[in-house]
This record gives sequence, structure tokens and C-alpha cells, in this order.
Amino acid sequence: MEASQALSRIGLAGLAVMGQNLALNIADKGFPISVYNRTASKVDETVHRAQQEGQLPLNGQYSPRDFVLSIQRPRSIIILVKAGSPVDQTIAALSSHMEPGDTIIDGGNEWYENTERRISEVSQQGLLYLGMGVSGGEEGARYGPSLMPGGSHQAYTNIQDILQKVAAQVPNDGPCVTYIGEGGSGNFVKMVHNGIEYGDMQLISEAYDVLKNVGGLNNEELSEIFSEWNRGELESFLIEITADIFRVKDDLADGFLVDTILDKTGMKGTGKWTVQQAAELSVAAPTIAASLDCRYLSGLKEERENAAEALREAGLIEPEGVKLSGVDKKRLIDDVRQALYASKICSYAQGMNLLRAKSVEKGWGLDFGELARIWKGGCIIRAVFLDRIKKAYKRNPNLASLVVDPEFAREMVQRQAAWRRVVGLAISAGISTPGMCASLAYFDTYRRARLPANLVQAQRDLFGAHTYERIDRPGSFHTEWTKLARKSNAGLLKTNF
Amino acid sequence: MEASQALSRIGLAGLAVMGQNLALNIADKGFPISVYNRTASKVDETVHRAQQEGQLPLNGQYSPRDFVLSIQRPRSIIILVKAGSPVDQTIAALSSHMEPGDTIIDGGNEWYENTERRISEVSQQGLLYLGMGVSGGEEGARYGPSLMPGGSHQAYTNIQDILQKVAAQVPNDGPCVTYIGEGGSGNFVKMVHNGIEYGDMQLISEAYDVLKNVGGLNNEELSEIFSEWNRGELESFLIEITADIFRVKDDLADGFLVDTILDKTGMKGTGKWTVQQAAELSVAAPTIAASLDCRYLSGLKEERENAAEALREAGLIEPEGVKLSGVDKKRLIDDVRQALYASKICSYAQGMNLLRAKSVEKGWGLDFGELARIWKGGCIIRAVFLDRIKKAYKRNPNLASLVVDPEFAREMVQRQAAWRRVVGLAISAGISTPGMCASLAYFDTYRRARLPANLVQAQRDLFGAHTYERIDRPGSFHTEWTKLARKSNAGLLKTNF
Repeated sequence: MEASQALSRIGLAGLAVMGQNLALNIADKGFPISVYNRTASKVDETVHRAQQEGQLPLNGQYSPRDFVLSIQRPRSIIILVKAGSPVDQTIAALSSHMEPGDTIIDGGNEWYENTERRISEVSQQGLLYLGMGVSGGEEGARYGPSLMPGGSHQAYTNIQDILQKVAAQVPNDGPCVTYIGEGGSGNFVKMVHNGIEYGDMQLISEAYDVLKNVGGLNNEELSEIFSEWNRGELESFLIEITADIFRVKDDLADGFLVDTILDKTGMKGTGKWTVQQAAELSVAAPTIAASLDCRYLSGLKEERENAAEALREAGLIEPEGVKLSGVDKKRLIDDVRQALYASKICSYAQGMNLLRAKSVEKGWGLDFGELARIWKGGCIIRAVFLDRIKKAYKRNPNLASLVVDPEFAREMVQRQAAWRRVVGLAISAGISTPGMCASLAYFDTYRRARLPANLVQAQRDLFGAHTYERIDRPGSFHTEWTKLARKSNAGLLKTNF
Repeated sequence: MEASQALSRIGLAGLAVMGQNLALNIADKGFPISVYNRTASKVDETVHRAQQEGQLPLNGQYSPRDFVLSIQRPRSIIILVKAGSPVDQTIAALSSHMEPGDTIIDGGNEWYENTERRISEVSQQGLLYLGMGVSGGEEGARYGPSLMPGGSHQAYTNIQDILQKVAAQVPNDGPCVTYIGEGGSGNFVKMVHNGIEYGDMQLISEAYDVLKNVGGLNNEELSEIFSEWNRGELESFLIEITADIFRVKDDLADGFLVDTILDKTGMKGTGKWTVQQAAELSVAAPTIAASLDCRYLSGLKEERENAAEALREAGLIEPEGVKLSGVDKKRLIDDVRQALYASKICSYAQGMNLLRAKSVEKGWGLDFGELARIWKGGCIIRAVFLDRIKKAYKRNPNLASLVVDPEFAREMVQRQAAWRRVVGLAISAGISTPGMCASLAYFDTYRRARLPANLVQAQRDLFGAHTYERIDRPGSFHTEWTKLARKSNAGLLKTNF
């Protein structure tokens, strides 16, 4: 490092595409940045891009020491490497050159408990720490992501001006960043965001499945429909790109590219963690879970082909007559739109309630309206609809569930008939809509004052003496069910059907 | 301990009801047993019961040392205390008096990794270890449980004769015990057994809900129906006790007891673990997950009451007209029976596939046919239907899923129409059948050679450059979707609906 060179305002280590793009974004906003990667060629690549994209103030460094010393104090260093031990290795390499009051910011999809461990570890050395969820993929990193920083509030304050410039900007709603809360809250919120994203993608693929296989729509029609939906209440990044996808022709074969893509979906850890945390916190998140299950099952391509064959041999006649007869296309399309929207509300309600449960457990004090606001731009789930969620939580920060917010409740009521028609039609057509079914079952369970759980309690009391409560008086009761049943049996009225 | 006293064949520590009952069961089968509990009165109580129940050969001990020394070598000591640290404490108290070759058998619902840790810990001292799932509740413990011992094979051999006498006996199918496998396999199998049990109970409560709220059946009719079902393919402990439950009159108020039980269900950790393990192993277990979700949601009684009110205010008119008009009771009952059976097969398929995934991961070599056999008696899920599962795995130990076994496949095909009718009817009636829906969606996903996951892959490739595979050639592909879509947009055919 040349002694004469001015110090950078911030540093970024880990120059895969996400890291490069975020560094260029920061430099582009006028904040001089130092960058470092263990592989020198990645540094060169980034420096070259910074020059090409307009002489951006980006300073390439080739050793951890020079990198750290090239940043002004208190230093803020973002690391963007693979979650898990690479993060620990990077922290070890950098922290020995850092000084009390400096900050490490992990921008990866890290398990929140790892962040909490590191917060405590680096604090021994007087370092501050942020676990910052970054959503929006490579595009978002370069031109404006949604940022979810959690951990040290001081550390956030040190770089607030940078984050607010770098984040996606939503007209009238500011930059897509806010201080999430203490500890691993930033990672946890990003994890649930990803779970919600899984749910959205699953629900859209079910809408596609029903429209294609029950409604008989072709790709051109599907593209039109999704474009149209993107001008209404469903307006969102995922609906928009879905419309685009149906337009793309295959350049290796006749027809549309989407039809030749193998139906096996990959996934990363965050969806799995979301489902496991929901179970840990006793929160029902069936729509998100269904989206994960479908990814698992999609992976079993060969097993599914064998199953289709085995069931054909066992006499299964595809119950698909519906497709050919009597479906009113226009009405089906409108019904599916409503079913998708209602299912989506339930999925977001699950995600938000999972966040609330964790916030209570950890004392994070999450602001759900703010979360909806910072998801309005930059990230994969960005959608006009998030503004309604923001407003619902502004109206009532203690909202028990999105579906009981007066506005959403009204929307659910208006859409329930269409929703029931779509799911019912899909079921009779043998088309699986696991996400829409899960959302509907969730709605129909959550909104019922009386569930058949009384029977489950009776069973548990009968075989395990677990006791039960009554609706008409306080206390805990146990009954000798079998004895009483056998006694009353003699006099039981015979009923004929 | 008197020097002259003969040594016991086995010992049991932890004399809550389960422990007392299992000790009495062992003594009753002619195996002299020593018992111990930290609270002396529990020892007295057990000794008293042993005398009352026919001078059973049971020897009460009041110190860990005397207890251990009263057992013949190599010693086998069952502990039945609360899972977690009480197990560690009990091991610590006993093991200091034990000698190499002796065995500790934990009969609790322990997390399998705790068992694997303890296997390794006690092996330092030359002790053997079994983690043994015990199912059947208090009744089962006394008169014949289903036993799932995993861990040291030598330890199993040492007490095989006892376990085979103590376990439930199924005519022509032997005792409900088998050596499960190494490590924590016994606990893991018991955990999944409990998950399956949750699923069964949920499905039965949904059948009850539909029959009551769509079919309008009263408790007497319900009792009759479940009794009748218990004479057919659904014959099982849970169906039998359900028939009993509907017979029991309320002794504190008019009417039937089941109607006054609060619809809030409790739960223990094993169901949660099952769902978390399914996610960990990328196995879809939606029916089991739905049963857990319903327990969580049932717990939110007040929230549900408020939600019912909020949605009424938003204009929800209960879509329950179905109940009053046009439902053919007799056909509905028959349909629900078939839906319950088909849903149950899917739930067991999920549980078995979860076990298979874990068995592969851990190298346990689980024998699924044997597991079905030992569940035929003693335990809560005991059912005639398990014999069919046993046979399916005997026919093909590598069966990919129960639903593709030729016999089960035929049963699924025969029942699918009724199943779709019930779920469809419940959906239009606003009755939630989350478990039946989850099973049906699972079936309709697993049996489809082509899923809409191609769209999900296209989306992931578009926003995250995750790449995709094709159905027509090998390799991994990436497409500039947006660019191509916008290009083709100009020439896109306008479609009108």
C-alpha cells in the first residue's frame, strides 16, 4: 500500500460475483472501498470492472494486512464468502489486523446462531459485528439490494449512510434497509424471507400447473395472463419474470424453453432452516413447508416416473377429463388469480408469525411493518402487495395474524369462493396444489373457533392419562374412558344407516 | 442387601407409573428384578404392588450401590426417567457401581443423538448401552409394550429372552420386539413411530370433523361408525378407542363428554423432532407435519375465536350449507372411510421413507418389514393394516414407497375417487382437513412423472443464475431469460380471452 494513498471508507472481502457487484455498487455511490480476495485474480477482475464501469473509487488489495490497513477507522469490513467455516476463516485472517471499535459485517446466508457465536467471539477483541441478510441476487447486489443488518447498533450507525445509498430505493418509501435488531436477527429475518420466497415460487408454479393442465393454456397465453396479473394486486418481481419466462423460445429445439427444462428443483439451507425453526417455535408454516416438500419430491424424478407407471399398472386412470370438458377458461383464470393471492396472504401470515415468535423468544423487538417496507424493493419477493402488509402492521403492530387485519380479512372473504373452486377443481383433476391446499387448510383451521382437537385430547387422555381441560369449567380432568364406554355399551342405541 | 439373597436377573431405575408397570411386567414373566428410585416411597409403592399382584419376584432397593450389586452380572439395568439431563444424572449415579460388560438401557423418548453420545461415554468404562423405544403407554408397559431397542447388539442378546417375554405377543407373528440396529436407531424409530401416531390421530379427528360437521352425525352414530370401521381394513387401537370415546356420557353436565373437552392439544418433543429430521433429510412428510401444525393452531384457542369473529365482521358467511342439503349420509360415511385409509397409507409411506433416509445416512440397515411387525401389537398405532406393510416390505425390501407396492397401489386407485370427493366436499364446506389434503397432495405429487418444477428452475436461473438441466440432453444450462423475453416481446402474439 502506498503511504500517500487516501484511506477507504469501507472494505469488502470475498469477490465472487455477489461480492464484486456489492463492492461496485458501494463505489458507484461515491464511497471509496478496498476489496480483497484470497485469489489475486479476483481482485484484478474487480479492479478492472471498477475502471470499466466509470473509474469507480475501488482499491484492490492483495494481503489481509494491507487490506485492513487501507480502511479508515473505525473500520467496517463486509465479508461475502460461503456460510459456515469460510466465514470463520475470513474473520480469523482479518481480525488479527483489526482494532477495537472496528466492525465485521457478514453478508452471507448464515445460520443466525453462528452469527451470535461470532458476535461474542470478536467482542473479546473489542470488535463489533453485523449479520446482514442481502437479497436480490447478483442484479440486486449491483444496483440495489434489500439489506437486513442485525447485531451491533453502533456498527450499523457507522455505515448507515452507505447502506441507505446502496440499498434499493422505493419511491416514497425510502431505501430498503433498516436496523433489524440485535444478535442474529438480520440473518433470521433473511432466512424467513427466503422461506417466503420458496412459498411464492411454489404457489406460482401451482397456478401455472392448473392453468396449463386443467385450463389447457399454452405458453403464449400464460405469458399474457401473468403480464396482466402483474398490472394488478399480484404485481411483483416473481410474477413479472414468470411472464418473461413463458416468452422465451428454445434455441436448441422447437418450442418454448420452459417446456424442456427438467422438473427437478435445487435448494439451499435457508428453506430447511425456516421449516425447522417453525417446528422449534411451535408455529404452523404449512405453505412454506409444502414448497420445501415439493422441492424434495421434484428431486425424485426417476422415482416419480416409476410411481406413475406403477399406478397406471394398478389401474389408475388419470382423472383429467376436467381439462377437456366444461372448464370456463376465463373464469378459471380469474379464480386462479384470486386463489394465488389468498394463498400468498396465508403464506406471509405464517412467515410473519414465525418472525414474531422468534422476536418474542429473543427479545429482538422486530418491527414487522418495517420488514415489509424493506422487502418492497431489491429483493426477490418485492411486490406491491407488501405495502398492504406494511400498512396492516402500522395500523396494529400487535396484529395476531395478517388474515385478521380488517383489510386482508375482507380480501380473504372476497376470494374464498374462487380459492375453494380452484383447489377443489385441481383435486378432482388429480393436479396437486400442495401450497394452495396448505394455505387454505391453514386459513380454515386458524379461523375456526372450534376444532376437532377435543377428540385428540380425549384419545391422549385415554391411552396416556395426559388429562384434558373442559370448555365449561376450569381445571384438569382425567376419565376412565374405556371402563365407562364398555359400561354404557350395553344400553347403546343401535343406529342403522 | 442381605448376603444370602439371590441376585436379580435385571434392574430397573425410575419408578413413575411407566417404570413401575414395566418392572411388574418383567417380574410377572418370571424374571427376578431389582428396582430403585431416588424417592424411597416409590420403591415401597412398587414393592407393595408386586406383592399385591401375586407375590412377583421384585426386589426393592434404596441406594444406587445396593441396587446395582443386587443384580447378576453381566448386569442389565433399564432406566425410565425423563429424557435429557435426568438420564445423564441417573447414569452417573449408577455407572460408578457397574462393571465392564454391564449394560444400561434407556427406555425413555430420548433424542437419538443423546443416546449416541452416551454410548460413547459409557464405553470408556466398558459399559454397553441400548436406547430402547417403549410404546404402549402405561397399559402397554404392564401388559405388553412394543419395544424398539437399538445400540449394542451384545447388550440386546443379554436380555433378548426377557424382552421377548415382556413385549406384546401377536398371534402368528411373535413378540413385538426386534433388534433395531446400532447407535440411536431405537430412539429414532420410536420418534418416527410417534410422528406416525400424530398423523393417525389427526386423520381420525378430521374424519370425525367431516362426519359431524358435513354429515351431521351425532355421537351415537359416530360411535357406531367407528365400531363398524374397527371390523374392517381400519381395525386398530386408535379406531377402537375412538368408538369408545363417543360413548362416554358427561358426568358433570348433560350430553357426551367429548363435546365438553377443550379443543387445545398438547404434545411432546418427538413429533417436532420428526418434522425437523424430515427437513434435515430432505424427505417430504407433510401429513405428519400437518398433524403437528394442527396441534400448534389448536393451542391458539383465543386467537382462533378472535379470528372467527374478525372474519365474520369482514363478511364471512360460513360455507356450510352443504351440511344441510344434499349430502348422502351413507355415501359420505363410506367415502370418509376410504379417504381415511388412503390418507393413512400416505402418512405411513412418509414415515417409512424418513426411516429409510436415516438408515442410509447412518448405515443402520433398518428392516422395515420387521418394524411394521413389531408395531402390530403393544403400541398406540397397532393395527391390522401393519401386516400389509410388513408383507409389502417382505415382497420388496427396497420398495421406494408404500404407494407403489402393487397391493397398496391397487388400494389407492380404488379409493382415490372417494378420497377426492371427501377432501373436495370438506373444502367447499369450509371444514379443514389438513392431514387428508396433505396426503392427497403428496400422492398427486409423488405419482406425477412431470411436475411444474421446471418453472421454478427457470425462475431460479433467471434471478440467481442457478442453471438448469434439460429433459432432452445432458448438461447444465444458463439462459439470459430477461434479454430474450424482451426481444421476443415485440413479436408476441396477442391473445384474447
